[in-house]
Amino acid sequence: MTAAQIIRRKRDGETLPPTEIRSLFEGYAAGSVEEYQMSAFLMAVCFRGLDRTELDALVEVMIASGAVADLTHVPGVKVDKHSTGGVGDKVSIVLAPLVASLGVPVPMMSGRGLGHTGGTLDKLETIPGFRTDLSLGEFAAQVEHIGCALIGQTDEIAPLDRRLYALRDVTATVESVPLIAASIMSKKLAEGVGALLLDVKVGAGAFIPDHAAARELARTMISIGSARGCHVVALLTAMDRPLGFAIGNALEVEECVLTLRGEGPADLRDLVLEQAAEMLVLGGAAADVDAARVAAATALDDGRAMAKMGAVIRAQGGNDAVLEDPAILPQAPVRHVVEAAMDGTVTRMDVRAIGEAAVSLGAGRATLGAAIDPAVGFHVTVKPGAVVARGEPLATVYAGSVEAAATAASRLASAIVIGEAAEALPLPLVLERVTG
Amino acid sequence: MTAAQIIRRKRDGETLPPTEIRSLFEGYAAGSVEEYQMSAFLMAVCFRGLDRTELDALVEVMIASGAVADLTHVPGVKVDKHSTGGVGDKVSIVLAPLVASLGVPVPMMSGRGLGHTGGTLDKLETIPGFRTDLSLGEFAAQVEHIGCALIGQTDEIAPLDRRLYALRDVTATVESVPLIAASIMSKKLAEGVGALLLDVKVGAGAFIPDHAAARELARTMISIGSARGCHVVALLTAMDRPLGFAIGNALEVEECVLTLRGEGPADLRDLVLEQAAEMLVLGGAAADVDAARVAAATALDDGRAMAKMGAVIRAQGGNDAVLEDPAILPQAPVRHVVEAAMDGTVTRMDVRAIGEAAVSLGAGRATLGAAIDPAVGFHVTVKPGAVVARGEPLATVYAGSVEAAATAASRLASAIVIGEAAEALPLPLVLERVTG
Repeated sequence: MTAAQIIRRKRDGETLPPTEIRSLFEGYAAGSVEEYQMSAFLMAVCFRGLDRTELDALVEVMIASGAVADLTHVPGVKVDKHSTGGVGDKVSIVLAPLVASLGVPVPMMSGRGLGHTGGTLDKLETIPGFRTDLSLGEFAAQVEHIGCALIGQTDEIAPLDRRLYALRDVTATVESVPLIAASIMSKKLAEGVGALLLDVKVGAGAFIPDHAAARELARTMISIGSARGCHVVALLTAMDRPLGFAIGNALEVEECVLTLRGEGPADLRDLVLEQAAEMLVLGGAAADVDAARVAAATALDDGRAMAKMGAVIRAQGGNDAVLEDPAILPQAPVRHVVEAAMDGTVTRMDVRAIGEAAVSLGAGRATLGAAIDPAVGFHVTVKPGAVVARGEPLATVYAGSVEAAATAASRLASAIVIGEAAEALPLPLVLERVTG
Repeated sequence: MTAAQIIRRKRDGETLPPTEIRSLFEGYAAGSVEEYQMSAFLMAVCFRGLDRTELDALVEVMIASGAVADLTHVPGVKVDKHSTGGVGDKVSIVLAPLVASLGVPVPMMSGRGLGHTGGTLDKLETIPGFRTDLSLGEFAAQVEHIGCALIGQTDEIAPLDRRLYALRDVTATVESVPLIAASIMSKKLAEGVGALLLDVKVGAGAFIPDHAAARELARTMISIGSARGCHVVALLTAMDRPLGFAIGNALEVEECVLTLRGEGPADLRDLVLEQAAEMLVLGGAAADVDAARVAAATALDDGRAMAKMGAVIRAQGGNDAVLEDPAILPQAPVRHVVEAAMDGTVTRMDVRAIGEAAVSLGAGRATLGAAIDPAVGFHVTVKPGAVVARGEPLATVYAGSVEAAATAASRLASAIVIGEAAEALPLPLVLERVTG
């Protein structure tokens, strides 16, 4: 069967047997299927989807295109977490050491900022000396000895996914639930984890704002994991406002340190504990999520999570003094307070616009490979529903220059909508737990 | 707006303004839009279609990508015909000289065999010496002096269409009504015609078998023509059986000569007269189709059409002795009669299989540029509904070898289904006339 025939069958809504999925994607990896054939196929998938067996075959090919981390020598169920990405989502940096401090190994591979959202790697790299580019061997050894490693996705993992993603990006074929699910899961499965917690964001600041579509994405990823013996649970969580107060790389690391000390924003702490509870159950360290939540809160409050984070930072070459004194992180020269222009209620936050304003300020990348400014960003201290008085501070902008601060402040002010009454109730922090 | 953004808008069902259609297709022609972006766009069009303004903009770009024949010095309304292609469809070879003999100029550009169907060019080239590769200048001069020229689509006409077609062929994006319509109409409009008759085939042997889809294609082409001041009428005609008896290039030319003499098969003569009547009205040479049909029958019977065909053949370097003695055409060495295996009624003909059997025999091309055998083919002398007795001849195979004849005979025998009673009534020769 030729590539054109396989594309035609998908276009016409037929289900492809695994042999045809393999033939198409292995042919693409090998160069016998052309870029223009793959892009036509991907567009057909945007309309027709992929069913369970097609997806499993695709994930298989993507994993097999690269190396697979071998963590079999590490005892216990290795558990990672993946977030679909949000504004101010710094959960991983608190979560990973917290869960590891309770005996569940956490081999975590993270990405860089994408679009209007930040990335865990960019945040970690604001810690002086911190290395995220461990080899797969160093990664496995650190998970074995410390119980946790926080690294970037190496080029060795699922290179086919990287090539497909670049093609999807320029052919408007990114927004497909099965393609997003296959991309995420192939990388996570290649990490060698036994279980996975998914944080699927919902709301205006999420890549997939719609609740039902987010649920479908969660279910799709769960089914991919289950086909390969990886237990996956998903929490659908709120992204109709930033998470915590800090947005921007060093600012977020500082907020993580505060949270590890028990001084962080309530929503961030609560979400960390919910996710930690799930991971502890997945890792077999707790019988149920209620018991696990209590155990996690205790480990956060008694310093065990903080101690584990110190060990991770030292193992990866970073300066652990950051945990005592976050002021050693890069500091922005200019601070600009954004005040409420009128009395009223915060009726809505345009989270995507806030994320984009942070990117413009230098906290993220407009194009792949662009440099970022680790120090800049926002502290947004109000949430939807807050009652504010004219002149009351809503946020602080941390910028490299007075001009940049003014521009960002004005964008931020328009993204925090003040009116008479809330347009809609804010989403609950956790909207739904999806298990299959 | 980037190519990816334009693709995304089409994917999401938005209507693109003409500026964006132009930017995408001119960018593709110029090399700034990549093949893989165009194929993704074309696949999105397969699902979302193109509306009237989008189509007009696309046709405009396709015409402007090449030369346009200048026939303004030829007086009168120039009228061409286009058939979507069928098995045994040799109408053009009788129709063009017939209509020209009644004073309507016919500048006709035809194609080669495609898939299971034959092509007028391949047929004409079986006439010794006949040249189909006239330049646009020679073409225009011949239309001026003789009133008719029968040539191939030159490389100068709509080169963007050729490039797009090659891409569609390998990316399963051929079967799209607007893309088919744009491809046909851009070439016809670039010929410089003032009016056009479309023969849109319906039934199992057509590229678009479905009546409703064929009607949609007809309407789409009519609207494209009307946007550029070209009056288009479409006849939807039967392709649930071959047209006439002959299938194969020299065999079909012989049948055309017989038809020009008044000795051809009834269905071929009838369809020629229906189409001629429409073209004469389009060209302003008759007040209505009834009068035009009578005029056309007279010109066929009194030898004027034959005389015009002689002039065309001589002008294009061919040997007009073929009109007196078709035996000068290439002759196949082997003839094999296919007999009815049982008493019964011809309940159904698998026209596509018959066309494919002819291609296998050498009458058409399996791949672009392959050589054909001008002499081979079939005479299929039965039609659906015919009552046949065991041993009665159904068809004759004309082949290059005994083996090839036997294989083709067996394929032909299975494609002519004999049963107790007709499964469905044969389609009327003309199913519908579409004018807008």
